[in-house]
This record gives sequence, C-alpha cells and structure tokens, in this order.
Amino acid sequence: MKKAIAEFIGTFVLVLFGTGTAVLGGGIEGIGTPGIALAFGLSIVAMAYSIGTISGCHINPAVSIAMFINKRLSVKDLAIYIVAQILGAIVATLTLRTFLLSADLTTKNLGQNGFGSLSVSGAFLVEVILTFVFVLVILIVTGKKGNASFAGLVIGLTLVLIHLLGIPLTGTSVNPARSIGPALFAGGEALSQLWLFIIAPIVGGIIAAIVSRFAFDSEEN
Amino acid sequence: MKKAIAEFIGTFVLVLFGTGTAVLGGGIEGIGTPGIALAFGLSIVAMAYSIGTISGCHINPAVSIAMFINKRLSVKDLAIYIVAQILGAIVATLTLRTFLLSADLTTKNLGQNGFGSLSVSGAFLVEVILTFVFVLVILIVTGKKGNASFAGLVIGLTLVLIHLLGIPLTGTSVNPARSIGPALFAGGEALSQLWLFIIAPIVGGIIAAIVSRFAFDSEEN
Amino acid sequence: MKKAIAEFIGTFVLVLFGTGTAVLGGGIEGIGTPGIALAFGLSIVAMAYSIGTISGCHINPAVSIAMFINKRLSVKDLAIYIVAQILGAIVATLTLRTFLLSADLTTKNLGQNGFGSLSVSGAFLVEVILTFVFVLVILIVTGKKGNASFAGLVIGLTLVLIHLLGIPLTGTSVNPARSIGPALFAGGEALSQLWLFIIAPIVGGIIAAIVSRFAFDSEEN
Amino acid sequence: MKKAIAEFIGTFVLVLFGTGTAVLGGGIEGIGTPGIALAFGLSIVAMAYSIGTISGCHINPAVSIAMFINKRLSVKDLAIYIVAQILGAIVATLTLRTFLLSADLTTKNLGQNGFGSLSVSGAFLVEVILTFVFVLVILIVTGKKGNASFAGLVIGLTLVLIHLLGIPLTGTSVNPARSIGPALFAGGEALSQLWLFIIAPIVGGIIAAIVSRFAFDSEEN
Repeated sequence: MKKAIAEFIGTFVLVLFGTGTAVLGGGIEGIGTPGIALAFGLSIVAMAYSIGTISGCHINPAVSIAMFINKRLSVKDLAIYIVAQILGAIVATLTLRTFLLSADLTTKNLGQNGFGSLSVSGAFLVEVILTFVFVLVILIVTGKKGNASFAGLVIGLTLVLIHLLGIPLTGTSVNPARSIGPALFAGGEALSQLWLFIIAPIVGGIIAAIVSRFAFDSEEN
Repeated sequence: MKKAIAEFIGTFVLVLFGTGTAVLGGGIEGIGTPGIALAFGLSIVAMAYSIGTISGCHINPAVSIAMFINKRLSVKDLAIYIVAQILGAIVATLTLRTFLLSADLTTKNLGQNGFGSLSVSGAFLVEVILTFVFVLVILIVTGKKGNASFAGLVIGLTLVLIHLLGIPLTGTSVNPARSIGPALFAGGEALSQLWLFIIAPIVGGIIAAIVSRFAFDSEEN
Repeated sequence: MKKAIAEFIGTFVLVLFGTGTAVLGGGIEGIGTPGIALAFGLSIVAMAYSIGTISGCHINPAVSIAMFINKRLSVKDLAIYIVAQILGAIVATLTLRTFLLSADLTTKNLGQNGFGSLSVSGAFLVEVILTFVFVLVILIVTGKKGNASFAGLVIGLTLVLIHLLGIPLTGTSVNPARSIGPALFAGGEALSQLWLFIIAPIVGGIIAAIVSRFAFDSEEN
Repeated sequence: MKKAIAEFIGTFVLVLFGTGTAVLGGGIEGIGTPGIALAFGLSIVAMAYSIGTISGCHINPAVSIAMFINKRLSVKDLAIYIVAQILGAIVATLTLRTFLLSADLTTKNLGQNGFGSLSVSGAFLVEVILTFVFVLVILIVTGKKGNASFAGLVIGLTLVLIHLLGIPLTGTSVNPARSIGPALFAGGEALSQLWLFIIAPIVGGIIAAIVSRFAFDSEEN
C-alpha cells in the first residue's frame, strides 16, 4: 500500500510539474524547451530521492514493465504500480485544470502528447528510441553495476535530455501514464493518438530491458 | 547563537539572490522563469553545504515547523530559527533596495508574492501543493532513509522545480520568511495578501510532515 | 564485442541528441546555445553511468587516442572503439534524417561543424583548445587522483561548458566522430572542412594526454 | 611548480570560457544571463575535479588570500598562486582577442567588469557581498565539516548563483584576476574602475574567512 501511495504521489508530481510548466509557462515560445525539459527531469530527481526510498520511483508503466521483464518486480506489484501511476497522472491533470480555471485561463492545452507534423511511423520510431535510451540508462544505473547514490540524479538529467530532443517532435511521452492523464481531458486528437504513446514507450522499454540484460550485464543473475 | 547566525545568513542569501535575480534580471520577460528558478534553487545548494553544517539550513519557517512536528527540532530552537529567518529576509530586501537605489532604478517590484490572476482558494491550493512537495522531499532525503551527501543538491533542485511551475502562478512562496521580507517594503497588495503566504506554506509543510512520517517512514522512531 | 556495442550506442546517443536538439530546436535562434550545450553534455552524463560501465564511455576518437597514449587502452581496443564510434555517429545522423523526413522538414542543417567566420588557423586553434580542456578534465577525473563516482557528471558538465563557448565559433566538435556523421550527409562545406574537425581534436587530446601525465600525475605509473 | 601550472590553466579556463561565452554569445541580450552564469560556474566544476587535485583550484586571488588568512596556504604559495592566476587571466583575454580577430569581430567588449549604473559605493557593496557569499561557501565546504567530494560541484553552482544576481549589476567579478585580464586590454573605464574589482573581492573574502572560522568552525584548529 505504501508503494502504491509512493507511485501515486511520484507520478502526480511528474505530470503536474512537467505538463503544468509547459502549459502555464507558455510552451516552447514562452518558458522554452530547456525550461520544460528541466521540469520533467527535476521531478524525477525530487521523487527518486524521496518516494523512491519506498517504491523505487518508477512513476512510469514502461519502466515498471521493463523492471518486471528483468525480474525486479513481481506481477502483482506491476499491476499495483501501473494503476497507481495512471491514477496519479489523472489527478495531476485534474489539478492542473483546477489551477487553470482558478486563473481564468481557457486553454485546450493540457500538455498532451501528439504526432505533431510526424507520420505515424515517425512518431512511433521517435518514442521507441527515446524510451529505449531512457529505460536503458535506468536499468543499468540502478542495476548490478550501477551507482545507487547517483541514480536519481542521472535518471533525472537523462529525462531532461530526452525532452530536449523530443519536445519539438511528439512533446515527449516515453511514459504511458504521463500521456493518459492529459489525453483523457484534452480529448480529440490527443485521445485518438493516445494508443501510440502507450504502445511505443512499452516497446522501447522492452527492447531496453533485453539489451541491458544481455549486452550490459545489468541484472544480478 | 551560531545556529541563529547560520539561519540568518542562509535566509538572507536565499531572499537576496532569489528575489534580486527576479527584479534585476527583468522577471519572466527578461532572465526568464528558468533563470529565476535557478537562483532560488542554487541558493539552497550553496547554503545547505555551508551554513547547513551548523543549523541544518532550514531557512524557511514552514520547514522548521515541519521539523518540529516530526520532533527533529526543539520548541526553543523553532522560535530562534523563525526569528532569525524573518530577520534575514528583511535585511535581504533592505539590501536589494539599496542596490536598486544605487542603480537609480525606481521599481515597486521587490520580488513579492501575490495571487496574480488566481482566486484566493486557487492561490491557497497552489501554495499548499507546492510546499507539500518541497517539504516532503526535504523530510525524506534528510531522514532515516535519506541520503545526507546528496540532500542539499536534491533539495535545491527541487526548489528549482517548484519555481518552474509556481512562478507564473503566485511567484512561488512556499516560505513565509521569503514572502514577509519583500511584502513589508512593497506594501499594498503584497501586504494585504501576505497572510496567505504565511498560512498556506505552513499547512503544506504540516501535511508533508504527517505523510512523510506515516507513509514514508522518514523518522527515526 | 560488448564494448563495441557500448561505444556504438553511446556515440549514437551523443550525436543524435546533440545535433538533433540543435536542428529540431531551431539552433541558436530557437532553443539557444544553453539548450544545445545541455543536450551534448547530458548525453555524456546519461551514457557515462550506463554504457560507461562496459566500455568507459569514450564515445569520441580523440578521447580514445588520448587514453591509448596514456596506456589505458590497447591498440586493438583503440581500433574497435574508433570504428564503433564512427558507425554510431553515422547511424545517428541517418536517424535524424529519418526524423526530419517524417516531419516533412527540408533542411540542409544536420548539426554539422564548420569554420563559420573563423580563419582556418582560428578554427584549428579553437578546436585544439576546446579539446585540450575537455580531454584534460577526462583524464584527470578518471585517473589515479580522480573521482570515479563524480566523473560522468563532471565530464558531462565540462562538455556543456565547452559548447557554451564553442557553438558560436565552430559549432564545437572536439570529437571527430561527432563531425563525421553529419558531414557525410550534409556534404559541401561540411565535408571539405571535415579534415580540421578530425585532426584538431586529436591534436588537442594528445596535448592533454601529455600535460595530464607529466604536470598532473594522472596516470598510475 | 605544478601548482603554479595548475592555477595558471585553471584561471585561464575560467576567464576564457566565462568572458568568452559572454562576448561571443552576445551578452545578456544573446545567450542570456543564465548561459553566461553557467559558463563561469561550470568552469569551476571542470577545474575543481581536474587541476584541483594538484593546487586545490583557487583560481582567484580573493580565495587564495582567504585561504592564507585561515592558515591553509603559506605566504610563499600565496604569492605563487596569485602570479599564476593573473598570468592565466591575461593569457585568457589574449586568446579571446585572437578568436575575435580570427572571426573578424571588432568589439570593445572583452567581458570586462564595470560599475554599470551603480554608484561607486553601490558597486563596492555588491562585490563585497557577492564575494563574501562565494568565499564563505568555499571555506566551509572545503573545511573541517565540509564535503570533499561535492565541494567542486557546490562551489561551481554557487558561482552560477553569484552571476545570476551580479551580471546585471557589475558583471560579477568576485575575482581580481578575472577582472585584471579583460581590463588590461579593454582599457578606458574598465581600467580606471579596476581598483574596485581588486579591493572589494579581497575585502569580501577576508570577511568570509573570519566568519567561517569563528561562526562556522570551518578550520581544523
């Protein structure tokens, strides 16, 4: 139960601060790509060293699935984690909407992901590659040869990196929960394109799990 | 007494560099939200590894109250800390005013917090959530399961994060002392809205103290 | 073989995320020099703590040659590393082109390096100095008196620094592989000026190897 | 002799990358205050973990004098350090001029410090306070109760902070060597105001030495 609370709070913080900074800061034209990227990445830093002491701070179904594949997470915990992550993301988007309403801001932008000008296959490739890199770093730095003290910082800075490249493309998901929250309330294109931001990150994470295990000896056995 | 000096200097640095960067850098239109956020956050990094060796570097009444609730601070020290913090913030704003006068800059902007376009309840909610996240991270990373070496860095980066989201909303207080200093000299709306930036951060900090203790085992006993 | 895979992936990430951020983010006028610099530097942070556990994360022929000179790398591994690095860079540029095509962006900018408004000797001097500083830091922080835990973070932040100065000059190579990838596909001036971005970084790296060994006792024997 | 080389290279890097980023990046209007601040601060990070293993990486006469006052540096080394630092700064400005000439850029801006719109006493106060904070952090984090591993990172991030506030005021010196290099070649006002950027940082550093010793127990005896 404590793990569920931890994953709920962690994903809530990631989605609220990440998408909230993008929306309230005025997007790429306002706070800029580096500012938005920092918000997502520093959410990981903040959560890894706090709620991470309880749950490991996955706050991302693609990460939890990769952990499950490499036998670091039971199937029961996998289910609990994913439910908590999605709930956290939904409450985060609800909170952001409350902020926007309170500030009399009417916008359809809730920080949702989308294909942008990319083709479907292009968007898919982008999300697979971004998630592959992100999850590969996570699995190795928290694995057998990893560096536990630095892990949270390294993973957070890696998410900054992922966003610097991905924001002009898909807005960067690499995290089904992070995409589900905003899409449910934004509706329209965000909802019809949501499937990609669920499947592609999971595919990228699974590839990372296999590569980290066999090419980089990240696992205990 | 050394602790009081430490908290005085620490809060002085936080408020002078944080609000000073916002005012002298031209705010969101000038140095930008990331620049202002960095100034507040890096003040924590600088102070945590220096004056923090003496006092723990609370430099924030909401943090000290949360520490008191979780029995890490005596009631006597709590009183001393809060007085030193408020004095440090006031001297910081006085110093910023001196800089502005010396540079012949006439501005009513001293980096004060305000509701902006938010409703009262909206601003209250924002400050409670921001402070909850901030103090939760502080209590866990400096607690039983924490990471003493990384604590200052993690807390500083968390304050950067808090500001990335909060600057377009309330300007981000999460710290009664940080709001009191500028409000006393800015007067007007800043002064009439000051109560919220005292109460809401304390409420957020208290909730964090309870959650960190019971949900995240942050305390020794 | 695992080392080759590691260097391939590492250089792929460095070149894709570094040059990709520059191109897709709109260059100095768009995402800005700090954003591009962060992308290159954080690629190092991400890769050092992940693939670095296998290969040491050189992902740069100039670094591998300096390591070889200071007897930290065999001649056989040197050859393997350099081939893997160049292949990684080429695949990175191919991937970036795929992204651009998918997004219907027609641009000749693939993040290639060039002399800009500099004279040949000026560009050569710039790249020698930038690489000297970069490789000097690498050799010392990973050497006898170094700090293994912090090395990846310090080297990444050093590459951020190198780019802050070098982007307005040559775009910053300090890495033959990073220049070869984009130049092969951009052609024209990028290709005719490529020789400098191969030779100058190697020269800078060799000087750093000598200085770090004799002036800074970086080597074991 | 190795210490002198270390301080020479370290100060060379600080001044070349710091002032060079400001000049080539287009100053506050171009790369922006955060970009320039990062260049100065990351120079410290890069140098602390490299040349710092030999000399301690003062690369600043105000720091060396504070170290001397707190008996961490002999008078002979103090003299050697200061000479090496000033020479490093001068060669850095010469190198920057070479870059500018090579790029056919004619500018009077070499990153020199100045009073700006401040009164003399205002500029003096600014530099004393900025240097006090900077040197206080240095002395404590490298002192008896300090954190040797994090010191370089913390000091570098503190210099970022110092510049975020100080760039719009005096351009931020806090370092006589950093001001001497550009002033010698810029001449005019930079040269006639140079005295302040020598004296004020030294005063700030001396106050920090006394406060860190007596209020923060930073010294061994």
